[in-house]
Amino acid sequence: MFITAFKKYIQTLKVKEGKKVALHKYDTKYTPDGISKELSEKLLAESLAKLSMLQDKLYAHNKYSILIVLQAIDAAGKDGAVRHVMTGFNPQGVKVVSFKQPSHQELDHDYIWRHYTELPARGDIAIFNRSHYENVLVTRVHPEYILGENLPDVRTVKDIDAAFWNRRYKQINRFEKNIAENGTIVLKFFLHLSKEEQKKRFIERIDDPKKNWKFSVDDLKERAHWDEYQAAYEEMLSKTSKDEAPWFIIPADNKWSARLAISEIILQEFESLKIHYPAVSKAQKEELLKARDMLMNEK
Amino acid sequence: MFITAFKKYIQTLKVKEGKKVALHKYDTKYTPDGISKELSEKLLAESLAKLSMLQDKLYAHNKYSILIVLQAIDAAGKDGAVRHVMTGFNPQGVKVVSFKQPSHQELDHDYIWRHYTELPARGDIAIFNRSHYENVLVTRVHPEYILGENLPDVRTVKDIDAAFWNRRYKQINRFEKNIAENGTIVLKFFLHLSKEEQKKRFIERIDDPKKNWKFSVDDLKERAHWDEYQAAYEEMLSKTSKDEAPWFIIPADNKWSARLAISEIILQEFESLKIHYPAVSKAQKEELLKARDMLMNEK
Repeated sequence: MFITAFKKYIQTLKVKEGKKVALHKYDTKYTPDGISKELSEKLLAESLAKLSMLQDKLYAHNKYSILIVLQAIDAAGKDGAVRHVMTGFNPQGVKVVSFKQPSHQELDHDYIWRHYTELPARGDIAIFNRSHYENVLVTRVHPEYILGENLPDVRTVKDIDAAFWNRRYKQINRFEKNIAENGTIVLKFFLHLSKEEQKKRFIERIDDPKKNWKFSVDDLKERAHWDEYQAAYEEMLSKTSKDEAPWFIIPADNKWSARLAISEIILQEFESLKIHYPAVSKAQKEELLKARDMLMNEK
Repeated sequence: MFITAFKKYIQTLKVKEGKKVALHKYDTKYTPDGISKELSEKLLAESLAKLSMLQDKLYAHNKYSILIVLQAIDAAGKDGAVRHVMTGFNPQGVKVVSFKQPSHQELDHDYIWRHYTELPARGDIAIFNRSHYENVLVTRVHPEYILGENLPDVRTVKDIDAAFWNRRYKQINRFEKNIAENGTIVLKFFLHLSKEEQKKRFIERIDDPKKNWKFSVDDLKERAHWDEYQAAYEEMLSKTSKDEAPWFIIPADNKWSARLAISEIILQEFESLKIHYPAVSKAQKEELLKARDMLMNEK
């Protein structure tokens, strides 16, 4: 019963196309009622086992691909979600792509180019840990980065106005519509973390020597832009959640509940696809039987 | 005790540099004494758990990368090994690359080029499910394929002589020596299957509708070249097993024992690396503590 309630709840996390998102109205601390951490691990294992079977069919069926986008502020749990939700998949057919700062070669192309080349092949799943959306997030907070792109119409930061960002949201929507129409299922997750919880996690990374390498003093500089980032996320969520490529806002202060929500959403979307093992035609079946005879009559 | 014996046994599977391999002297049917399928699953889970922890260190350490090469005749269990051995890894930091027939663009480069571009980044693991070795295997059995490579010195199939293959083995050795010297650990597995067991598995793929998509009538055509393939494998194993990039000959008629052997070998090699979480310098530590203060004194 608790589980049914949870499954219903996660449906409310989808951002409907056209909805104007105000992030302060979205919970960061949600933990499902009546589900303990232990039970959540059991439920996660169950949904991963189902996902693994569906993945096998996806691969054999070879018509759809799945693109999972993860976006969030530092320490919101992107890496942990990848580890705990995606480890159940067969690595043959899954890739995780972490996009770092673009190289010079990448900057010499439009900003979508390097993401396009990493899209999943048919039958495969790709997880973008950070994605093309950084181009309306980190660059939104630091518009001077855009100057490195050498765009024809941008000479100074003043050229990067509201109209510029609106064009960019539309470009991303077009890109995603194109790939969706050609068989890519696009699922986008925003891990919604509170400012207090980020602080707690940063301190953990400082205090635990094993985690030191995950923390950089630069992370504090970005934290100083907290409100600007929240505004950039809000506009991104409002402008780019589409029926064919929806955003889900995942309460992220509780790690295990966030992971369970992500895996259940992927499972629900996956189950709604009509995928099956490829059927063989009558002619193919006859060929197979001929091959069988040849094998049985080998000398 | 059985386990100690097994761990010792798998060391005998490594092909020593310079050894001339005669495959008929290598077992295909080996099953470890005193280890049941159930126990093997428990052991596999244990070694995967250890590998997963080592992978986390490998990633944080960010100095080494690991390249795992799988080669074998059809139905020897390459895909199953990937699924069962590699599913324990965190997909962030692991990629499986299956090389199909080269495209026109790929044929317009030397045969190593497309494999080079897929090598693992530092801290990462790549599994090549089939690899650059196909260039001394499938092309050895079908030398006419080489003509598609437009090589300067090859005009007709007659130019593809023993000297040609010897050059190619040396080229592969040089390529692997280069990457090994720069931090890539190269582990190569040949799954050694008997001809009878291949027949049994082909018939299963024909009889089980869920597996039909895995079988192609062309697989029988390749089976007709069994002896030529065995000879090509023998020469590959004899000429390209190097201290810095060894081959392991895995008895593959028993699937679970083959998987356990592969995971144990990877684990042994992994444990022999000196990897650790990166230590922070004194200056870095001071910076971290300054960051901690800033966080604690935030308004």
